[in-house]
Amino acid sequence: MTEAAPRRRARGAGGGAARRAERTSVKIETAKYIERNIPNFEILNEEALEIIEYNADTILEEVGVNFVDNPAALQRWRDAGADVQGERVRIPRGLARKLCETAPAEFTQHARNPEKSVVIGGRNLVLAPVYGPPFVRDRNGGRRYATMDDFNKFVKLAYMSKWLHHSGGTVCEPTDIPVNKRHLDMLMAHMTLSDKPFMGSVTEPSRAQDSVDMAGILFGKEFVQNNTVMTSLTNINSPMTFDDVMMGSLEVYAQNNQACIISPFIVGGAMAPVSVAGTLTQVLAEVLAGIAYNQLCRPGAPAIFGAFVSSIDMNSGAPTFGTPEASLVTYGAGQLARRLGVPFRSAGSFCGSKLPDAQAAYETANSLNMGLMSGVNFMLHSCGWLEGGLVADFEKFVMDADQLGALHGLAKGISVDENGQAMEAIREVGPGGHYLGCAHTQANFKSAFWKSDLLDYKPFEQWEEEGARDTYALASNRVEKLLATYEQPALDPSIKMALDEYVAEKKASMPDAFM
Amino acid sequence: MTEAAPRRRARGAGGGAARRAERTSVKIETAKYIERNIPNFEILNEEALEIIEYNADTILEEVGVNFVDNPAALQRWRDAGADVQGERVRIPRGLARKLCETAPAEFTQHARNPEKSVVIGGRNLVLAPVYGPPFVRDRNGGRRYATMDDFNKFVKLAYMSKWLHHSGGTVCEPTDIPVNKRHLDMLMAHMTLSDKPFMGSVTEPSRAQDSVDMAGILFGKEFVQNNTVMTSLTNINSPMTFDDVMMGSLEVYAQNNQACIISPFIVGGAMAPVSVAGTLTQVLAEVLAGIAYNQLCRPGAPAIFGAFVSSIDMNSGAPTFGTPEASLVTYGAGQLARRLGVPFRSAGSFCGSKLPDAQAAYETANSLNMGLMSGVNFMLHSCGWLEGGLVADFEKFVMDADQLGALHGLAKGISVDENGQAMEAIREVGPGGHYLGCAHTQANFKSAFWKSDLLDYKPFEQWEEEGARDTYALASNRVEKLLATYEQPALDPSIKMALDEYVAEKKASMPDAFM
Repeated sequence: MTEAAPRRRARGAGGGAARRAERTSVKIETAKYIERNIPNFEILNEEALEIIEYNADTILEEVGVNFVDNPAALQRWRDAGADVQGERVRIPRGLARKLCETAPAEFTQHARNPEKSVVIGGRNLVLAPVYGPPFVRDRNGGRRYATMDDFNKFVKLAYMSKWLHHSGGTVCEPTDIPVNKRHLDMLMAHMTLSDKPFMGSVTEPSRAQDSVDMAGILFGKEFVQNNTVMTSLTNINSPMTFDDVMMGSLEVYAQNNQACIISPFIVGGAMAPVSVAGTLTQVLAEVLAGIAYNQLCRPGAPAIFGAFVSSIDMNSGAPTFGTPEASLVTYGAGQLARRLGVPFRSAGSFCGSKLPDAQAAYETANSLNMGLMSGVNFMLHSCGWLEGGLVADFEKFVMDADQLGALHGLAKGISVDENGQAMEAIREVGPGGHYLGCAHTQANFKSAFWKSDLLDYKPFEQWEEEGARDTYALASNRVEKLLATYEQPALDPSIKMALDEYVAEKKASMPDAFM
Repeated sequence: MTEAAPRRRARGAGGGAARRAERTSVKIETAKYIERNIPNFEILNEEALEIIEYNADTILEEVGVNFVDNPAALQRWRDAGADVQGERVRIPRGLARKLCETAPAEFTQHARNPEKSVVIGGRNLVLAPVYGPPFVRDRNGGRRYATMDDFNKFVKLAYMSKWLHHSGGTVCEPTDIPVNKRHLDMLMAHMTLSDKPFMGSVTEPSRAQDSVDMAGILFGKEFVQNNTVMTSLTNINSPMTFDDVMMGSLEVYAQNNQACIISPFIVGGAMAPVSVAGTLTQVLAEVLAGIAYNQLCRPGAPAIFGAFVSSIDMNSGAPTFGTPEASLVTYGAGQLARRLGVPFRSAGSFCGSKLPDAQAAYETANSLNMGLMSGVNFMLHSCGWLEGGLVADFEKFVMDADQLGALHGLAKGISVDENGQAMEAIREVGPGGHYLGCAHTQANFKSAFWKSDLLDYKPFEQWEEEGARDTYALASNRVEKLLATYEQPALDPSIKMALDEYVAEKKASMPDAFM
């Protein structure tokens, strides 16, 4: 799949200039979402899984969950057979799992460029960028509040990143735009600066409705009702609390056949028990209740089992990322999601570091590897996350995005067909020979190894002559180069005009709000 | 297991000074080697494994391996039933695997401090530091040729690292000591500056013999003949070449009941086919031949299935590390080693970066995680490796060593006993509450989460006030602090004197050689 605009132009120019342009241009390709050809890592045995599933049902039945400020939700639960006391909903054993049965095991999220539509679920892994930070950082400008200009840059970078399949949602919070209007600009950016799939707003039910309406303009109203064109993030306030804003947005999306990630937000030891199995039990109970509610709103609406899990530094109370306990929870949660038969969302470029330094990279690599191995189907935050999610970092965005390529390589698995076996090569080369020039190597070397677009493999002397740059410096160059060569994907001007009108009208209809 | 000398003294001093010393002293503890409570990642199915095993035997039978400048080895092979033509040894199908049957599935490598002895094999993972770099680097001094002073410092750091179970071997090449004498000083450092298990010399058979003799002084001659006190690295010159120096050393170690890692050294696409399955096939053939030969030298001698695998940047020819293809090979090799019934050595803090930056950390984390999941039993190079193995880096040594703690955490797996289930905590806290103060958290928080001794989790403002230090700067401080507080473990003075005499005599017996 090649977004070939810049390269086409280079070819059109012909001759030496074209070849030079080929060499210096930034390639715009988007890889297909990952279809794993490797097993998932199954950390829990059957007995352990059954204990956790039994306990989750015990929580739902005996402790229950709260649906806050949401009488309609309480009524839906009552009608479904739950025991509702005040805002507390107690769900009889087995009911939540039964309700989840109508949720699809996988679904297609359509992109406006059909080649970039993604299938979420099964053995697939779809990668989307960081979500939510109020700050941004880059090497030259340091740390500062995010603006709409930053937001647009991140959307462009995601569009240009080969290994990102998805444009994401709130890649950073554009704090220079009023709170009640910024979702309109964010949606506009995803819809016009990129042609990859994207996420809708969840900060108010009315903004979820705006998302659906704008998607109707982009894709056609009927298409949106019959297909999924947005995947949106509805967090659960762990432990076991479903607030009206998130649930209100979920209701809008479900009723319009759009996908929701139903995701407990857990700092281990604070919002869930300090033990891994206890956390898994609570996560499962929460997701069961959330997806069941989603299916009560519209049976068959696509829903994703989310698990956002960090651990905690028990000295300072700070959340910690890329830790072994978070990995253990995620491996287990992946198994629980597969047994429930719904797609799984977890992992990401998580780190606690304030800079895109070694700490950030260790923590991120731990989480990315775990995400692939745990069977994650939708990975939000897969690049650009910094400082516990407070910061979207430009350099880290391209550094992480490069590492996502390694996940694609690992997911290929091991081919043992005749070409993979390479017996002719081994016979040809023999003891003491070397393989660089042999026929098998010549035939396969182009696709044999994942190739970084960023990391430095040069000899020490050359690297030193070129300025002894670390990864941060190399990434800074790459950010600049990508943004300088960005070209907007084509969009029907009448659609663009209709979107502009919608946004202008909406903005004019209400005063600015900054809280 | 606590190496408690500094802390004991602090307690002895009593009162406030002791408490202050407790707070400011660097704790010297050594964790027990990892006993995995998680499954191995099994990437290949039975059919694929059988194809690779069949093909490996085909290579041994049809192509054969070379034993160079080693008539005694050729005679051993002839006697065992192999077809020997010149230096080429062709091994009938099944013979090599049959010979490997006498190699133990696991063995104890004794340390002079019995509490630090390690069991290599089974579900265990023993971690040893970087091996072999001619250069060192630190943040203040930059990159330079390694000296004996550097070597001693690394041995001290390994001794003080909680998560390192092993002192390693040539942690760097002490280039200021004559080539033919430096093994004596290196062994002396491991034997006297640390009490963890260590490796012997393999650069000449006579140096392997010196290693055995010095171990005889340290442990007692008879103990060494009846027990394993060294694990040494004998590389195979891939493809399929066994040179006389490495095999000569292997012969000395095998005949003295000491362990050998028999390890193909492979840059994929150069020393092995460019495909993963082809590389696995060649690796298996080489290791089968190597361990079979080891067992011909002494049936029952401990041997380890080694796999050192990097991939290659096909543009520049540079080896690349922490890549998906290396991971795929390692996962497969782990399965082949388990089916052969011998311990497995692979993975490490591999990276191609010239600095301990984000590239180094991504690549290292990829490899460390893969090492744990692939069932590695002995991980050489588990910390401190930089620049494709040309450099042993002081800061990266402590950075990586800290991450090794995360592997210990992950290997614990998930407990589903009553305490792990935490149902009482979930009942106690309920919807909307928090877990920080609950009884279950209080009872478990000290051991619930892996805790970094290095990484920064402070709030941004505090971190900035303290100098906005990156991981490199923090690690530099930690190196200084560790070396400043190092205390030598006690050793019987008569043993020390005997070792000194041995070394002095050996050094006096030959002129210095620098090549």
